Amino acid sequence: MSSASWDALSVILAKRDGRELPPEAMRWFVEAYTNGQVADEQAAAMCMAVFFNGMSAAELSAWTEAMIDSGTRTDLSAVNRPLVDKHSTGGVGDKISLILCPLVAACGAAMPQVAGRALGHTGGTIDKMEAIPGWDPHLGPEALLAALNEVGAVITAASADLAPADAKLYALRDVTGTVASIPLIASSIMSKKIASGTASLVLDVKVGRGAFMTDLDQARRLAETMVDIGTRAGVKTTALLTRMDQPLGRAVGNSLEVDESIDVLHGGGPTDVVAVTVALATEMLELAGIDADPGAVLASGVVHEVFAAMVARQGGDVTAPRARAPYRHAVAAPSSGFVTAVNALTVGQASGRLGAGRARKEDDVDLGAGIEVLAPVGTEVEAGQPLFLLHSANEQRMAEVNDVLTAAVEIGPEPPDVPDVVIERIA
Amino acid sequence: MSSASWDALSVILAKRDGRELPPEAMRWFVEAYTNGQVADEQAAAMCMAVFFNGMSAAELSAWTEAMIDSGTRTDLSAVNRPLVDKHSTGGVGDKISLILCPLVAACGAAMPQVAGRALGHTGGTIDKMEAIPGWDPHLGPEALLAALNEVGAVITAASADLAPADAKLYALRDVTGTVASIPLIASSIMSKKIASGTASLVLDVKVGRGAFMTDLDQARRLAETMVDIGTRAGVKTTALLTRMDQPLGRAVGNSLEVDESIDVLHGGGPTDVVAVTVALATEMLELAGIDADPGAVLASGVVHEVFAAMVARQGGDVTAPRARAPYRHAVAAPSSGFVTAVNALTVGQASGRLGAGRARKEDDVDLGAGIEVLAPVGTEVEAGQPLFLLHSANEQRMAEVNDVLTAAVEIGPEPPDVPDVVIERIA
Repeated sequence: MSSASWDALSVILAKRDGRELPPEAMRWFVEAYTNGQVADEQAAAMCMAVFFNGMSAAELSAWTEAMIDSGTRTDLSAVNRPLVDKHSTGGVGDKISLILCPLVAACGAAMPQVAGRALGHTGGTIDKMEAIPGWDPHLGPEALLAALNEVGAVITAASADLAPADAKLYALRDVTGTVASIPLIASSIMSKKIASGTASLVLDVKVGRGAFMTDLDQARRLAETMVDIGTRAGVKTTALLTRMDQPLGRAVGNSLEVDESIDVLHGGGPTDVVAVTVALATEMLELAGIDADPGAVLASGVVHEVFAAMVARQGGDVTAPRARAPYRHAVAAPSSGFVTAVNALTVGQASGRLGAGRARKEDDVDLGAGIEVLAPVGTEVEAGQPLFLLHSANEQRMAEVNDVLTAAVEIGPEPPDVPDVVIERIA
Repeated sequence: MSSASWDALSVILAKRDGRELPPEAMRWFVEAYTNGQVADEQAAAMCMAVFFNGMSAAELSAWTEAMIDSGTRTDLSAVNRPLVDKHSTGGVGDKISLILCPLVAACGAAMPQVAGRALGHTGGTIDKMEAIPGWDPHLGPEALLAALNEVGAVITAASADLAPADAKLYALRDVTGTVASIPLIASSIMSKKIASGTASLVLDVKVGRGAFMTDLDQARRLAETMVDIGTRAGVKTTALLTRMDQPLGRAVGNSLEVDESIDVLHGGGPTDVVAVTVALATEMLELAGIDADPGAVLASGVVHEVFAAMVARQGGDVTAPRARAPYRHAVAAPSSGFVTAVNALTVGQASGRLGAGRARKEDDVDLGAGIEVLAPVGTEVEAGQPLFLLHSANEQRMAEVNDVLTAAVEIGPEPPDVPDVVIERIA
């Protein structure tokens, strides 16, 4: 059917009234919005109608494919290793990509991760990597192929040609109250991941107070929706639902998270970071058809060499001194007992306030700022013992966040059950 | 509460999620959209959220008041007669304003009708009046007051300063699939009517195949919503639900409808036109506190004098020859029997196709074009007898609409029951 058969108003009215649209109509709408034929106000009305009425699987596949085709799908057919990728829906203290990328490379896969920057209370992998002096997030097509073949691990920023429809739609959704729609979230994520050229993909869908999805059922629906989009597009896709009630690991903030990642790459580090990384690596290697024991590989410390090589190819030096905040401030426990909860959202927001994050896209990030979580859930503390160590260039803001951080921690008389960080697998 | 407390995104999110907004927030949104502080895409998202979640009576009152206050509310305190007005939601062959306005004036009221133009399948009072040579829809404030005091009857086009928020919102709704929302329809109509300065208002809410509201329950909800808005704004408001399944009267098209109106003004004309006019006049005079018998006044033929005077004050001459289409074409009955239905929507669309209407606001109207309905519901016809007489400057289009008009008429073996044109009253 020719695109001349569609017009914006008919598509909006059908979606508004709950009539299923043919795939061609969904594709036309995305194309016409991207090229300016459909106006912002029409796309906003469509997104709000989608918020209320959703999309069928066929509608969503067509919508996502059109977003992919709005730019260039990266051709990685010249890569001589199995291609795997991972996406996280974002959390507080989530530095998994820094470890996972060299880990799966060490096991024989190639991971071409296109990553993003911090926004709101969550961190961004590109900001974290930029805490390594000299590291450049941009890599040309030939250098990308060489890095994937020779090292197997690449982290880069998205080019403007990666699903540009998503950038336009996301900016619109952001100001029109249409971000929180599962099909719109799923198509935004999957269009970029599929356009990045991977053959298989594991999704880390975070659930909890520090995640975009605070509700398990919603997270499950999002995971199922994304797995379905990937599978329909010919990308082997599975998902893990993982907990994001307290920050992941002990470090929140860019230089601090690189430090912690390097501990894990050497075979140490917090057990929750290791557990999530190994669970995701296991999924990815299975999809890639690689028989390896990522837990053992990580514990050996050898992955640090791959990380250093990956960083060096983009001009970075893992041994160079990283940015440090000039001031420290300890937040004291108000009472004695066992830590039963650490609110990840509050910690993420406080870390942003200390300089580690962005309220708006234009803001600068202070790479040295952040928070060390000294007493994660299960820790026994004495009153007055430090719960957090704050790092910032702004002493006044450290004083300001002291009380909210004190209130972010719950302390009880009994040691709590600490549930597994991986909740379930969706395939 | 200061307007600085609101922002577009918060208002959209609250409406999207079904939380009732304070009146100040609704008022702020309309003001901010009108002055360009809220973007088109945000207003579109808001309108779509309103489509799904509606508005409370308090929200809708505040929204409508802000629309009224976006322009100047006409001050008619110098008028020495009781002020009454009427609004019709629009139909096919609806020339009631041309008769009603001089009728209530003849009974002692003043009717300051601000009217619109044809769009889609429905006609517009201003286009009909413009079929009278010399008549000018624009009238300055002093001439308006003089006409209301001396004649009691005025029909004018809206000034740009009459609820300008409505013009902006309507243009947006038109392209974003958000026209068909009861609170948005009700606020659009009522903002202009209240801003026109009347003290009381009767709404003619049309129901049926040729009306915007095809469903009786929906029409009733719209009528109740508008009556509530008017009452809360201090305007005495009632509504009649009237039938719009077949065209009103026998004439559809501008010069043709003036001809028919003049018949009624002389005491003749089709019974359905007389019935609706007298029912609306009775409501209006009651709200105005005037004790009169509008049926007897209309039957006397005296109202034609008031009409001629009203027209003359705006440069028009009712005796001057009106535009006539150069060609005629009769649509023949395909069988014998009783006419049981004449589809008003089809007739309205065909009349537009012959030149009497507008598909888009920019289109010109052919004042002479239109359709005479020769066999309304209940008529006994012989096969081959004319059902319609078409008037057009375009012979090809007359041939094109012949078959759809034949199909617009249902002919059965038994005389149908013809229900009253007035369905019910809402106060």
